[in-house]
Amino acid sequence: MTTTNNDIESNVPGRRQRVQAVTTGIAVLKGLTKLGGRASLTVLAKQVSENPAKVHRYLNSMMDEGLVAQDPVSLQYYLGAGAIQIGLAAMRLADPLRVAEPALIRLRESLEMTCFIAVMGNKGPTIVRFEEPGLPVTLNVRVGSVLSLLRSATGRVFLGFTDDTVVEKLAREELAQTTSAQAGGLDGPDPVAALKEEVRKAGMAIVRDTNLQGISAIGVPIFDFSNHVVAVLTVLGATGGFDASPDSAVAQALLKEGAAISAALGHEA
Amino acid sequence: MTTTNNDIESNVPGRRQRVQAVTTGIAVLKGLTKLGGRASLTVLAKQVSENPAKVHRYLNSMMDEGLVAQDPVSLQYYLGAGAIQIGLAAMRLADPLRVAEPALIRLRESLEMTCFIAVMGNKGPTIVRFEEPGLPVTLNVRVGSVLSLLRSATGRVFLGFTDDTVVEKLAREELAQTTSAQAGGLDGPDPVAALKEEVRKAGMAIVRDTNLQGISAIGVPIFDFSNHVVAVLTVLGATGGFDASPDSAVAQALLKEGAAISAALGHEA
Repeated sequence: MTTTNNDIESNVPGRRQRVQAVTTGIAVLKGLTKLGGRASLTVLAKQVSENPAKVHRYLNSMMDEGLVAQDPVSLQYYLGAGAIQIGLAAMRLADPLRVAEPALIRLRESLEMTCFIAVMGNKGPTIVRFEEPGLPVTLNVRVGSVLSLLRSATGRVFLGFTDDTVVEKLAREELAQTTSAQAGGLDGPDPVAALKEEVRKAGMAIVRDTNLQGISAIGVPIFDFSNHVVAVLTVLGATGGFDASPDSAVAQALLKEGAAISAALGHEA
Repeated sequence: MTTTNNDIESNVPGRRQRVQAVTTGIAVLKGLTKLGGRASLTVLAKQVSENPAKVHRYLNSMMDEGLVAQDPVSLQYYLGAGAIQIGLAAMRLADPLRVAEPALIRLRESLEMTCFIAVMGNKGPTIVRFEEPGLPVTLNVRVGSVLSLLRSATGRVFLGFTDDTVVEKLAREELAQTTSAQAGGLDGPDPVAALKEEVRKAGMAIVRDTNLQGISAIGVPIFDFSNHVVAVLTVLGATGGFDASPDSAVAQALLKEGAAISAALGHEA
């Protein structure tokens, strides 16, 4: 085996040091991933805009370590068991709460509004983490609170993006218990289906005075690598205090943070 | 950003060329994976036996490419969304048939016996690929054949290692249709449960003249990265022609190839 010591560093003060061969190696791995995880040397070299001899050396190193394997018949290279192990470890770590925390803080600071993260608990959407702005008067939410699936923005996002019989059943049960006084907006032959379609179309859920009089909220979905909604990011405020429309600055900021959290969890938009 | 051109090659004829920095980079990724996907620089450097400054340069390169991220609070490094994408592509490719093919050929050549791969179809265990030795008289199996869950070695492996109500139901239905003449070995208060336990304990299933008079077979499970049995590798021959016991050379060769296929699919034994 021929190896070359190419971990040469160059010292430029104040700059973060890189290892060029690692950057190239990752480009090869990502190129293979983009090609469906499997490609010939020629196609892969073209994909990463490097010469085949160079890519071949990189692939040899990755094959030794089990990250890449070669099909003995087609001679194509493909991502191997080592890549699965690394991916699995990354997936186990893809925790929406951990990833969402910096976004919650950014939203609180930029919007000066209360925002929270909810996950689907066995009783329904449950608030697990919240941030409140440093203002004299703020809206407070309680960690552990279970929210309505039909009447809260958070619940509607879970309802809209979850294809799960348990969630559907919870929604039907809640609908059956809804009094006619609360039923505003929940009518038509199949209000649950109508709600789901509306949320999916908008990519978010907005309620104004629906769950609580005087309070509006916007919720956006957080997807994981398997395209499931694993959490909902919600901002809420006094109905007169902010513009709760899909095109508003608040809704757009929320959508952007939601998409960034999803991307960090491995979701591909 | 500082980069160094360290993709230096050295030409030693007849030897496959490597890129040392890629080998080191993969060692860092695997070290992080072994530590649960998340570690401080100090712990990670110790894990891979490199100095922290060097590991830091490697991590910087991986962070730029999204393979690794850093927690802003704990400053720990963890496997990021890029690692999930690469892992997902590798998992989609983890096809037991493709991976098992070279093993089937090796087994045919070393044992000179008929061997096949079966997957669980909607009707039961189904032969999808087989190899027969180049002998004048050989046992032949038909691709597409559905095998008995209770009476074939292949079926018993699926039954033993699958915790699936559909498979359990198929087995119960088959048991109900079994005549008393066929019932040899399938008795006791719960023959299905007894069979499952026996197979799990042995790590394989062996039948002698059970499914077909004069034919013996040994089946071993193939697991994927999620620890599910995705296929069964089976060898069969005339009952008088080979030693169909768990400690026999045939059984041990089969176990070894089954474990190698599973490892290539990302299974951790």
